[in-house]
Amino acid sequence: MSKLRVCSFSLSVDGFGAGPHQDLDHPLGVGAEALMEWFFPTQAFQSRHGPGGGETGVDNDFAEQGFKNIGAWIIGRNMFGPVRGPWLDHGWTGWWGEDPPYHVPVFVLTHHPRPPIAMGGGTIFHFITDGIEAALHQAFEAAEGRDVRLGGGVETVRQYLNARLVDEIHIAVGTALLGAGESLFSGLDLPRLGYGVARRTATARATHLIIQKTS
Amino acid sequence: MSKLRVCSFSLSVDGFGAGPHQDLDHPLGVGAEALMEWFFPTQAFQSRHGPGGGETGVDNDFAEQGFKNIGAWIIGRNMFGPVRGPWLDHGWTGWWGEDPPYHVPVFVLTHHPRPPIAMGGGTIFHFITDGIEAALHQAFEAAEGRDVRLGGGVETVRQYLNARLVDEIHIAVGTALLGAGESLFSGLDLPRLGYGVARRTATARATHLIIQKTS
Repeated sequence: MSKLRVCSFSLSVDGFGAGPHQDLDHPLGVGAEALMEWFFPTQAFQSRHGPGGGETGVDNDFAEQGFKNIGAWIIGRNMFGPVRGPWLDHGWTGWWGEDPPYHVPVFVLTHHPRPPIAMGGGTIFHFITDGIEAALHQAFEAAEGRDVRLGGGVETVRQYLNARLVDEIHIAVGTALLGAGESLFSGLDLPRLGYGVARRTATARATHLIIQKTS
Repeated sequence: MSKLRVCSFSLSVDGFGAGPHQDLDHPLGVGAEALMEWFFPTQAFQSRHGPGGGETGVDNDFAEQGFKNIGAWIIGRNMFGPVRGPWLDHGWTGWWGEDPPYHVPVFVLTHHPRPPIAMGGGTIFHFITDGIEAALHQAFEAAEGRDVRLGGGVETVRQYLNARLVDEIHIAVGTALLGAGESLFSGLDLPRLGYGVARRTATARATHLIIQKTS
Protein backbone atom coordinates (compact mmCIF):
# COMPACT_ATOMS: atom_id res chain seq x y z
CA MET A 1 0.00 0.00 0.00
CA SER A 2 1.19 3.50 -0.70
CA LYS A 3 2.61 5.33 2.28
CA LEU A 4 3.08 8.93 3.24
CA ARG A 5 6.70 9.21 4.29
CA VAL A 6 8.89 11.95 5.71
CA CYS A 7 12.54 11.25 4.90
CA SER A 8 15.87 12.73 5.94
CA PHE A 9 14.13 15.15 8.25
CA SER A 10 17.10 16.71 9.99
CA LEU A 11 16.84 17.96 13.53
CA SER A 12 19.16 19.84 15.83
CA VAL A 13 20.04 18.35 19.21
CA ASP A 14 17.51 20.75 20.71
CA GLY A 15 14.74 19.63 18.38
CA PHE A 16 14.61 22.30 15.70
CA GLY A 17 13.97 21.36 12.08
CA ALA A 18 14.57 24.87 10.79
CA GLY A 19 16.25 27.98 12.07
CA PRO A 20 14.66 31.39 12.58
CA HIS A 21 14.48 34.17 9.94
CA GLN A 22 13.90 32.16 6.77
CA ASP A 23 14.52 34.29 3.69
CA LEU A 24 15.99 34.17 0.20
CA ASP A 25 19.51 33.72 1.55
CA HIS A 26 18.45 31.26 4.26
CA PRO A 27 15.92 28.80 2.84
CA LEU A 28 16.05 26.74 6.05
CA GLY A 29 16.45 29.70 8.38
CA VAL A 30 19.62 31.04 9.93
CA GLY A 31 22.09 28.38 11.05
CA ALA A 32 20.09 25.46 9.74
CA GLU A 33 22.61 24.29 7.16
CA ALA A 34 24.32 22.70 10.16
CA LEU A 35 21.37 20.33 10.44
CA MET A 36 22.33 18.80 7.10
CA GLU A 37 25.98 18.08 7.88
CA TRP A 38 25.30 14.34 7.84
CA PHE A 39 23.57 14.60 4.46
CA PHE A 40 25.92 16.76 2.38
CA PRO A 41 28.76 14.20 2.16
CA THR A 42 26.47 11.37 1.02
CA GLN A 43 26.39 10.00 -2.49
CA ALA A 44 22.63 10.59 -2.40
CA PHE A 45 23.23 14.32 -2.08
CA GLN A 46 26.40 14.64 -4.15
CA SER A 47 24.95 12.75 -7.10
CA ARG A 48 21.92 15.07 -7.22
CA HIS A 49 23.26 18.44 -6.10
CA GLY A 50 27.01 18.16 -6.27
CA PRO A 51 29.68 17.01 -8.68
CA GLY A 52 28.93 13.32 -8.09
CA GLY A 53 30.91 10.96 -5.94
CA GLY A 54 30.08 11.19 -2.26
CA GLU A 55 30.14 8.67 0.55
CA THR A 56 28.28 5.40 0.79
CA GLY A 57 27.41 3.74 4.10
CA VAL A 58 24.62 4.01 6.63
CA ASP A 59 24.02 7.76 6.30
CA ASN A 60 23.80 7.36 2.54
CA ASP A 61 21.48 4.35 2.85
CA PHE A 62 19.04 6.46 4.84
CA ALA A 63 19.36 9.37 2.43
CA GLU A 64 18.72 7.09 -0.56
CA GLN A 65 15.57 5.68 1.03
CA GLY A 66 14.06 9.12 0.59
CA PHE A 67 14.30 8.79 -3.19
CA LYS A 68 13.14 5.20 -3.57
CA ASN A 69 9.62 4.37 -4.76
CA ILE A 70 8.46 8.00 -4.54
CA GLY A 71 5.63 8.85 -6.95
CA ALA A 72 4.77 12.34 -5.71
CA TRP A 73 5.81 14.94 -3.16
CA ILE A 74 3.89 17.26 -0.87
CA ILE A 75 5.61 20.41 0.37
CA GLY A 76 4.51 23.47 2.29
CA ARG A 77 4.37 26.89 0.75
CA ASN A 78 7.47 27.99 2.68
CA MET A 79 9.47 25.13 1.28
CA PHE A 80 8.51 26.22 -2.22
CA GLY A 81 9.75 29.75 -1.67
CA PRO A 82 10.20 32.76 0.57
CA VAL A 83 7.13 34.61 -0.79
CA ARG A 84 4.35 35.11 1.80
CA GLY A 85 0.71 36.04 1.18
CA PRO A 86 -0.81 36.24 -2.32
CA TRP A 87 1.45 35.47 -5.30
CA LEU A 88 2.59 38.89 -6.54
CA ASP A 89 3.42 37.43 -9.92
CA HIS A 90 4.24 34.01 -11.29
CA GLY A 91 7.97 34.62 -11.57
CA TRP A 92 9.00 32.46 -8.62
CA THR A 93 9.21 28.79 -9.65
CA GLY A 94 10.94 27.33 -6.62
CA TRP A 95 14.46 27.27 -5.19
CA TRP A 96 15.77 24.70 -7.62
CA GLY A 97 16.12 26.23 -11.08
CA GLU A 98 14.79 24.78 -14.34
CA ASP A 99 15.17 21.10 -13.44
CA PRO A 100 14.12 20.59 -9.81
CA PRO A 101 15.27 17.36 -8.13
CA TYR A 102 11.76 15.87 -7.85
CA HIS A 103 10.98 14.49 -11.33
CA VAL A 104 7.42 13.70 -10.23
CA PRO A 105 4.33 15.78 -9.40
CA VAL A 106 4.83 18.05 -6.38
CA PHE A 107 1.79 19.30 -4.48
CA VAL A 108 2.40 22.66 -2.83
CA LEU A 109 0.12 23.62 0.08
CA THR A 110 -0.97 27.24 -0.11
CA HIS A 111 -3.92 29.48 0.63
CA HIS A 112 -3.45 31.27 -2.69
CA PRO A 113 -4.45 29.59 -5.98
CA ARG A 114 -2.04 29.48 -8.89
CA PRO A 115 -1.93 27.45 -12.11
CA PRO A 116 0.37 24.41 -12.22
CA ILE A 117 3.95 24.85 -13.42
CA ALA A 118 5.58 22.20 -15.59
CA MET A 119 9.33 22.24 -15.02
CA GLY A 120 12.14 20.28 -16.66
CA GLY A 121 12.73 16.64 -15.87
CA GLY A 122 9.15 15.71 -15.10
CA THR A 123 8.55 17.93 -12.07
CA ILE A 124 5.12 19.59 -12.08
CA PHE A 125 4.18 21.94 -9.26
CA HIS A 126 0.48 21.81 -8.35
CA PHE A 127 -0.87 24.40 -5.93
CA ILE A 128 -3.44 23.00 -3.52
CA THR A 129 -5.69 25.36 -1.61
CA ASP A 130 -8.20 23.00 -0.03
CA GLY A 131 -6.15 21.51 2.75
CA ILE A 132 -3.74 18.77 3.69
CA GLU A 133 -6.14 15.85 3.16
CA ALA A 134 -7.06 17.03 -0.32
CA ALA A 135 -3.38 17.39 -1.17
CA LEU A 136 -2.69 13.88 0.11
CA HIS A 137 -5.56 12.43 -1.88
CA GLN A 138 -4.29 14.03 -5.09
CA ALA A 139 -0.71 13.05 -4.35
CA PHE A 140 -1.64 9.40 -3.81
CA GLU A 141 -3.55 9.43 -7.09
CA ALA A 142 -0.60 10.95 -8.90
CA ALA A 143 1.82 8.51 -7.28
CA GLU A 144 0.00 5.55 -8.91
CA GLY A 145 0.81 3.05 -6.17
CA ARG A 146 4.18 4.40 -5.19
CA ASP A 147 4.76 6.31 -1.95
CA VAL A 148 4.28 10.02 -1.36
CA ARG A 149 7.11 11.94 0.25
CA LEU A 150 6.24 14.79 2.55
CA GLY A 151 9.08 17.25 2.26
CA GLY A 152 8.45 19.92 4.85
CA GLY A 153 8.76 22.44 6.31
CA VAL A 154 8.40 21.71 9.97
CA GLU A 155 4.89 23.12 10.35
CA THR A 156 3.63 21.07 7.42
CA VAL A 157 5.07 17.88 8.89
CA ARG A 158 3.51 18.72 12.27
CA GLN A 159 0.11 19.19 10.64
CA TYR A 160 0.24 15.82 8.91
CA LEU A 161 1.49 14.09 12.07
CA ASN A 162 -1.26 15.67 14.17
CA ALA A 163 -3.79 14.37 11.66
CA ARG A 164 -2.18 10.89 11.88
CA LEU A 165 -1.67 10.94 8.11
CA VAL A 166 2.07 10.25 8.17
CA ASP A 167 2.94 6.56 7.99
CA GLU A 168 6.65 6.87 8.65
CA ILE A 169 9.09 9.62 9.52
CA HIS A 170 12.86 9.30 9.31
CA ILE A 171 14.59 11.78 11.60
CA ALA A 172 18.33 12.44 11.58
CA VAL A 173 19.72 14.22 14.63
CA GLY A 174 23.24 15.51 14.25
CA THR A 175 25.43 17.69 16.46
CA ALA A 176 23.99 21.15 15.84
CA LEU A 177 22.42 23.20 18.62
CA LEU A 178 20.17 25.89 17.14
CA GLY A 179 18.59 27.48 20.22
CA ALA A 180 15.68 28.88 18.23
CA GLY A 181 13.66 28.10 15.15
CA GLU A 182 10.88 25.67 14.35
CA SER A 183 10.57 22.86 16.87
CA LEU A 184 9.25 19.53 15.62
CA PHE A 185 8.11 18.06 18.93
CA SER A 186 6.78 21.07 20.84
CA GLY A 187 3.20 20.29 21.82
CA LEU A 188 3.21 17.17 19.62
CA ASP A 189 2.40 14.04 21.65
CA LEU A 190 3.51 11.33 19.25
CA PRO A 191 2.79 8.34 21.52
CA ARG A 192 -0.74 9.63 22.11
CA LEU A 193 -1.12 9.99 18.33
CA GLY A 194 -0.12 6.35 17.96
CA TYR A 195 3.51 6.71 16.91
CA GLY A 196 6.55 4.91 18.26
CA VAL A 197 10.23 4.46 17.48
CA ALA A 198 10.59 1.44 15.22
CA ARG A 199 14.34 1.67 14.66
CA ARG A 200 17.38 3.63 15.81
CA THR A 201 20.78 3.53 14.11
CA ALA A 202 23.58 5.88 15.04
CA THR A 203 26.57 6.82 12.92
CA ALA A 204 29.50 9.14 13.52
CA ARG A 205 27.50 12.03 12.08
CA ALA A 206 23.86 11.45 13.02
CA THR A 207 21.39 9.40 14.97
CA HIS A 208 18.77 8.03 12.60
CA LEU A 209 15.31 7.25 13.94
CA ILE A 210 12.43 5.64 12.12
CA ILE A 211 9.15 6.58 13.77
CA GLN A 212 6.06 4.74 12.58
CA LYS A 213 2.40 4.49 13.36
CA THR A 214 1.99 1.62 15.82
CA SER A 215 -1.77 1.84 16.29
CA MET B 1 39.02 24.63 38.93
CA SER B 2 35.87 23.11 40.33
CA LYS B 3 33.06 22.71 37.85
CA LEU B 4 29.31 22.44 38.06
CA ARG B 5 28.43 19.38 36.03
CA VAL B 6 25.21 17.70 34.97
CA CYS B 7 25.84 14.02 34.26
CA SER B 8 23.85 11.18 32.73
CA PHE B 9 20.95 13.50 32.09
CA SER B 10 18.66 11.23 30.09
CA LEU B 11 16.34 12.62 27.47
CA SER B 12 13.64 11.13 25.31
CA VAL B 13 13.86 11.48 21.54
CA ASP B 14 11.32 14.30 21.85
CA GLY B 15 13.37 16.15 24.44
CA PHE B 16 11.73 15.28 27.75
CA GLY B 17 13.86 14.70 30.83
CA ALA B 18 10.94 13.59 32.96
CA GLY B 19 7.45 12.32 32.32
CA PRO B 20 4.21 13.85 33.54
CA HIS B 21 2.48 13.05 36.88
CA GLN B 22 5.48 12.61 39.19
CA ASP B 23 4.44 10.90 42.42
CA LEU B 24 5.57 8.35 44.98
CA ASP B 25 5.27 5.52 42.47
CA HIS B 26 6.77 7.51 39.59
CA PRO B 27 9.77 9.50 40.84
CA LEU B 28 10.63 10.52 37.27
CA GLY B 29 7.04 10.82 36.08
CA VAL B 30 5.00 8.31 34.14
CA GLY B 31 6.92 6.45 31.44
CA ALA B 32 10.28 8.00 32.26
CA GLU B 33 12.03 4.81 33.34
CA ALA B 34 12.40 4.26 29.58
CA LEU B 35 14.78 7.23 29.51
CA MET B 36 17.23 5.27 31.62
CA GLU B 37 17.37 2.12 29.50
CA TRP B 38 20.94 2.87 28.51
CA PHE B 39 21.94 3.37 32.16
CA PHE B 40 20.42 0.38 33.96
CA PRO B 41 22.67 -2.27 32.34
CA THR B 42 25.90 -0.39 33.15
CA GLN B 43 28.35 -1.46 35.81
CA ALA B 44 28.07 2.10 37.16
CA PHE B 45 24.40 1.51 37.93
CA GLN B 46 24.52 -2.18 38.84
CA SER B 47 27.38 -1.74 41.29
CA ARG B 48 25.48 0.97 43.15
CA HIS B 49 21.84 -0.03 42.86
CA GLY B 50 21.87 -3.62 41.67
CA PRO B 51 23.50 -6.90 42.55
CA GLY B 52 26.85 -5.87 41.07
CA GLY B 53 28.21 -6.91 37.70
CA GLY B 54 26.84 -4.89 34.80
CA GLU B 55 28.29 -3.90 31.46
CA THR B 56 31.44 -1.96 30.75
CA GLY B 57 31.99 0.03 27.56
CA VAL B 58 31.13 3.50 26.33
CA ASP B 59 27.75 3.81 28.08
CA ASN B 60 29.39 2.78 31.34
CA ASP B 61 32.30 5.17 30.82
CA PHE B 62 29.85 8.07 30.56
CA ALA B 63 27.88 6.85 33.56
CA GLU B 64 31.05 6.52 35.65
CA GLN B 65 32.11 10.07 34.81
CA GLY B 66 29.15 11.21 36.85
CA PHE B 67 30.65 9.74 40.00
CA LYS B 68 34.27 10.84 39.52
CA ASN B 69 35.69 13.78 41.45
CA ILE B 70 32.31 14.80 42.84
CA GLY B 71 32.53 16.63 46.18
CA ALA B 72 28.92 17.74 46.54
CA TRP B 73 25.55 17.53 44.81
CA ILE B 74 22.77 19.99 44.21
CA ILE B 75 19.26 18.69 43.62
CA GLY B 76 15.84 20.26 43.30
CA ARG B 77 13.13 19.73 45.85
CA ASN B 78 11.22 17.43 43.51
CA MET B 79 14.22 15.18 43.12
CA PHE B 80 14.41 14.86 46.89
CA GLY B 81 10.81 13.75 47.17
CA PRO B 82 7.21 13.99 46.08
CA VAL B 83 6.15 16.33 48.92
CA ARG B 84 5.08 19.79 47.72
CA GLY B 85 4.71 22.98 49.77
CA PRO B 86 5.79 23.23 53.43
CA TRP B 87 7.29 20.13 55.06
CA LEU B 88 4.40 18.52 56.92
CA ASP B 89 6.81 16.65 59.14
CA HIS B 90 10.40 15.52 58.90
CA GLY B 91 9.60 11.92 58.15
CA TRP B 92 10.60 12.02 54.47
CA THR B 93 14.37 11.65 54.09
CA GLY B 94 14.60 11.08 50.35
CA TRP B 95 13.92 8.26 47.91
CA TRP B 96 17.02 6.30 48.75
CA GLY B 97 16.68 4.76 52.25
CA GLU B 98 19.24 4.96 55.06
CA ASP B 99 22.37 5.04 52.90
CA PRO B 100 21.78 7.26 49.86
CA PRO B 101 24.15 6.86 46.90
CA TYR B 102 25.73 10.32 47.30
CA HIS B 103 28.25 9.92 50.18
CA VAL B 104 28.91 13.68 50.12
CA PRO B 105 26.91 16.78 51.10
CA VAL B 106 23.75 17.24 49.03
CA PHE B 107 22.19 20.69 48.77
CA VAL B 108 18.44 20.55 48.24
CA LEU B 109 16.77 23.63 46.75
CA THR B 110 13.52 24.47 48.50
CA HIS B 111 11.41 27.40 49.57
CA HIS B 112 10.77 25.77 52.94
CA PRO B 113 13.50 25.65 55.59
CA ARG B 114 14.36 22.43 57.34
CA PRO B 115 17.33 21.32 59.47
CA PRO B 116 20.04 19.23 57.78
CA ILE B 117 19.73 15.45 57.83
CA ALA B 118 22.81 13.29 58.30
CA MET B 119 22.29 9.94 56.58
CA GLY B 120 24.45 6.84 56.47
CA GLY B 121 27.57 6.67 54.32
CA GLY B 122 28.49 10.35 54.51
CA THR B 123 25.44 11.83 52.78
CA ILE B 124 24.14 14.99 54.47
CA PHE B 125 21.08 16.75 53.07
CA HIS B 126 21.21 20.53 53.47
CA PHE B 127 18.08 22.51 52.61
CA ILE B 128 18.81 25.80 50.88
CA THR B 129 16.13 28.48 50.75
CA ASP B 130 18.04 31.46 49.37
CA GLY B 131 18.35 30.50 45.74
CA ILE B 132 20.46 28.65 43.20
CA GLU B 133 23.56 30.83 43.47
CA ALA B 134 23.66 30.49 47.25
CA ALA B 135 23.31 26.74 46.91
CA LEU B 136 26.13 26.65 44.37
CA HIS B 137 28.39 28.73 46.60
CA GLN B 138 27.84 26.40 49.54
CA ALA B 139 28.21 23.32 47.37
CA PHE B 140 31.56 24.51 45.97
CA GLU B 141 32.76 25.20 49.53
CA ALA B 142 31.68 21.76 50.67
CA ALA B 143 33.26 20.11 47.62
CA GLU B 144 36.72 21.38 48.66
CA GLY B 145 38.12 21.64 45.16
CA ARG B 146 36.25 18.76 43.62
CA ASP B 147 33.35 19.24 41.20
CA VAL B 148 29.70 19.75 42.09
CA ARG B 149 27.15 17.54 40.37
CA LEU B 150 23.77 19.02 39.59
CA GLY B 151 21.33 16.16 39.77
CA GLY B 152 18.03 17.51 38.55
CA GLY B 153 15.14 17.64 38.01
CA VAL B 154 14.65 19.23 34.65
CA GLU B 155 13.48 22.60 35.94
CA THR B 156 16.48 22.88 38.26
CA VAL B 157 18.89 22.14 35.41
CA ARG B 158 17.11 24.72 33.23
CA GLN B 159 17.47 27.36 35.94
CA TYR B 160 21.20 26.77 36.29
CA LEU B 161 21.70 26.74 32.50
CA ASN B 162 19.74 29.95 32.09
CA ALA B 163 21.98 31.54 34.70
CA ARG B 164 25.07 30.23 32.81
CA LEU B 165 26.22 28.49 35.98
CA VAL B 166 26.55 25.00 34.47
CA ASP B 167 30.02 24.27 33.10
CA GLU B 168 29.19 20.98 31.41
CA ILE B 169 26.12 18.87 30.76
CA HIS B 170 26.20 15.29 29.59
CA ILE B 171 22.99 14.32 27.83
CA ALA B 172 22.07 10.77 26.85
CA VAL B 173 19.29 10.41 24.31
CA GLY B 174 17.90 6.91 23.93
CA THR B 175 14.96 5.52 21.98
CA ALA B 176 12.02 6.55 24.16
CA LEU B 177 9.30 8.88 22.91
CA LEU B 178 7.43 10.41 25.86
CA GLY B 179 5.07 12.85 24.20
CA ALA B 180 4.62 14.88 27.37
CA GLY B 181 6.53 15.78 30.50
CA GLU B 182 9.31 18.22 31.30
CA SER B 183 11.15 19.47 28.23
CA LEU B 184 14.80 20.39 28.64
CA PHE B 185 15.17 22.64 25.61
CA SER B 186 11.82 24.42 25.37
CA GLY B 187 12.53 28.14 25.42
CA LEU B 188 16.19 27.52 26.31
CA ASP B 189 18.52 29.08 23.74
CA LEU B 190 21.78 27.32 24.57
CA PRO B 191 23.91 28.89 21.81
CA ARG B 192 22.79 32.36 22.90
CA LEU B 193 23.72 31.43 26.48
CA GLY B 194 27.18 30.50 25.24
CA TYR B 195 26.89 26.72 25.09
CA GLY B 196 27.91 24.39 22.30
CA VAL B 197 28.28 20.67 21.62
CA ALA B 198 31.84 19.67 22.48
CA ARG B 199 31.51 15.96 21.82
CA ARG B 200 29.06 13.41 20.47
CA THR B 201 29.42 9.65 20.82
CA ALA B 202 26.68 7.23 19.87
CA THR B 203 26.27 3.66 21.07
CA ALA B 204 23.66 1.03 20.35
CA ARG B 205 21.56 2.32 23.26
CA ALA B 206 22.10 6.07 23.43
CA THR B 207 23.58 9.13 21.84
CA HIS B 208 25.84 10.87 24.33
CA LEU B 209 26.43 14.59 24.01
CA ILE B 210 28.77 16.75 26.04
CA ILE B 211 27.60 20.37 25.97
CA GLN B 212 29.97 22.93 27.43
CA LYS B 213 30.26 26.66 27.86
CA THR B 214 32.16 27.96 24.86
CA SER B 215 32.10 31.66 25.76
